[in-house]
Parts: sequence; C-alpha cells; structure tokens
Amino acid sequence: MSGARPVAFYFEFSSPYGYIASQVADDLEQRIGRPLDWRPILLGPIFKVTGTGPLTQIPLKGDYSKRDFDRSARHLKVAYRHPDNFPIGTVAACRAFYWLKDRDAGAARKLAKALYTAYFVDNRDIGTPVTVLAVAKEAGFDAAALEAAIGELPVKERVKREVDAAIEAGVFGSPFFIVDGEPFWGVDRIPMLEQWMRSGGW
Amino acid sequence: MSGARPVAFYFEFSSPYGYIASQVADDLEQRIGRPLDWRPILLGPIFKVTGTGPLTQIPLKGDYSKRDFDRSARHLKVAYRHPDNFPIGTVAACRAFYWLKDRDAGAARKLAKALYTAYFVDNRDIGTPVTVLAVAKEAGFDAAALEAAIGELPVKERVKREVDAAIEAGVFGSPFFIVDGEPFWGVDRIPMLEQWMRSGGW
Repeated sequence: MSGARPVAFYFEFSSPYGYIASQVADDLEQRIGRPLDWRPILLGPIFKVTGTGPLTQIPLKGDYSKRDFDRSARHLKVAYRHPDNFPIGTVAACRAFYWLKDRDAGAARKLAKALYTAYFVDNRDIGTPVTVLAVAKEAGFDAAALEAAIGELPVKERVKREVDAAIEAGVFGSPFFIVDGEPFWGVDRIPMLEQWMRSGGW
Repeated sequence: MSGARPVAFYFEFSSPYGYIASQVADDLEQRIGRPLDWRPILLGPIFKVTGTGPLTQIPLKGDYSKRDFDRSARHLKVAYRHPDNFPIGTVAACRAFYWLKDRDAGAARKLAKALYTAYFVDNRDIGTPVTVLAVAKEAGFDAAALEAAIGELPVKERVKREVDAAIEAGVFGSPFFIVDGEPFWGVDRIPMLEQWMRSGGW
C-alpha cells in the first residue's frame, strides 16, 4: 500500500463525525487499498469562511445533531459518549499531531486515536494543553518534548498552513476525504467514496 | 399498508436531495411497509430560523454541493440535470400540492412527481405559477381549478401552517423524515432510517 497515492483524510479533533470516521478509517484503508493521510484541521477558521458555526449551536439542527452523533456511532458500532465540554478548541492537539507527524506519521496517527478516545469515550477535555500532554504521555510519547514543541512558532505556523491549505482545497467540514481531487464530506459519504473508487470515477 | 402509521416525508420542491428522495420514496415505502406522508415545505422561512441559506450560495460548500447533487443522483440511479434557474421559490407548487392533497393525497403525490421531473430532469422553472399550472395540466389535472385555488387565502394559510408545523417538529432541511418521533435528515440517512425501523428503535 505504501506505493499507492494517499487519500487525504481531514478531521477536526472536536468533531463527533470526525471521531467516528477515525474509528472506521483503518478498515476503510484496507478495503480501498490506499493509505489515508490523516490531516487534522481547525473548523473555527473554516467556519469564518463559510459563515456558519458549530452544529450544536444552530437552531433546530443543534438538537438533531446531538441525537444523530450517538445514532451514527451506533450505526457503525463505534463507542460514543458526548463530551460534557463541547465543542472545544483543538489547536494544542493539532500542533502536537503535526509536530509528531513530521517525525513519524504512524506515531501521529496513534496520538490522534488516543486523543479522540480520551475526548469521545472518556470525556476528557482535550481542549487543554495539559490534557493533550497527559494523553500523549499515557500513549507512550515524550510529553516534555511535545510540550516544548507546541509552544514553538514553526509548529504554530505549520498548523496555520495546514488549515489554509485545507480551505484552498475546498475542505469545509469534518470528516472530509479527497481522492484524486474528488471531495467527499461526511462519514455518511464513505460508501459513495468506495463506489466512486471501485468504478474508477463516474 | 393503509392501516399502518404514516412516516412523514418532508421535502422542498427546489431541493435536489428532496427530488432524489422522491425518486426512491415508493421503493422505500414498500420496503418499510408503512405509507409515506408527502409534505412539501418552504426552506426560505426555515432558513430564517436556522440562520443559514441555500447550499449553493455558501462559500466552499456551494461548489461541493453542485458536484454532490449529480453524484448522489448517480449513486441511487436517478436521472438528474441541475436546473439553470436555481434555487427557486416554490410557494405556488406547495399551494397546488396541498389544495390537491386535501381532496386526494394520491393525486397530490402524482403532481409532486410531475413537478420534480419538470424541474430536475426537463429544466423547467417550476418557480413560476404558469409552469406549475402547465405541468399540472399535462399530468391530467384541472389547471383552471388549481389556478383559482393557489390564489385563495385559505390555501395560502394552509401552506403557512404546514411550514410552521414542520419547524415546530424540528424540520430544518430537505428531505427530512420523521418516524414515530425519530427524525432523519437527508437522502443519505435512508439506510439508517431503515436500520432503525428494523431494530424497533435503538
């Protein structure tokens, strides 16, 4: 699979549907036979472009979405507990991820899974750097190195560049996949993505 | 099936996903063994509540949605041609529908299908009363009676009440299904709706 062109997998650490996608991402990768390139983004700056806001704060849609997060997780047999503090800012999580990714993409993926589980299963507020570092340490990472890294200007700029590039690529939600230029938004678009790949585009 | 409690099927005549749902609605009805109660709504007043607007006018999301309309139709093997005039106001279509529905629900469903085909296959602008009436006439309805009806205050108020009731029920998009109080938004939620019904709720 290492020679195949990667499929971009964008997600926001505070996104329930992003979390659900992350839980089925490894199986998806196996089925499509191409690696997923995990790319956390920040929906805050993206919502400024689209003029929208967090789902749960939108009238009518908010109540629906809380019901649908839980239901979508059950539908795909994924554990889910809606966090008490929601949504959260996830810039520290993103910085830790990209700093690690530049050194070891597999390690960054492992950290992302640990952070998602901490937030959406164990109800830990990964919006705070201290929790990000604690989760990283429990997952076997060097918390001191990560703590130093997430305060560094190049790491901050790396995250900003990733978010700008995502907007440039048309990403406006989480999860968001791009396969050979074809965009798919939502965990509910995974079947369509697979059909599209099987048929070699339409 | 006539004795079974109906499943509410809300849709907006200007909505591509509503149209796609209408094309698979009869099959869905057969599979679930319960009648669908077709209920056109107007997204304009609903978007005022949610603070959003037509999909195609939202930055980033707009470009994506135009691609996704066509792709979603192909995914479900439904004919689709994006209308030149889009989106449109559909109050005349709604008034004609509800006036007919109060007399013959089957006839109203037939009119809805004819209107949707006119707009999303034949590129006819059903936003104008003259086209609504022409389509109705071609489908075998009494255009003169419909023309009189859509100008009547009770019919106008009937549509307004329907939209208010939909908002009250939490409807914020098209298509939107409500099964025994459980809401499902989007043509992509149909598989989940069916799983939910099969399992008797979760």
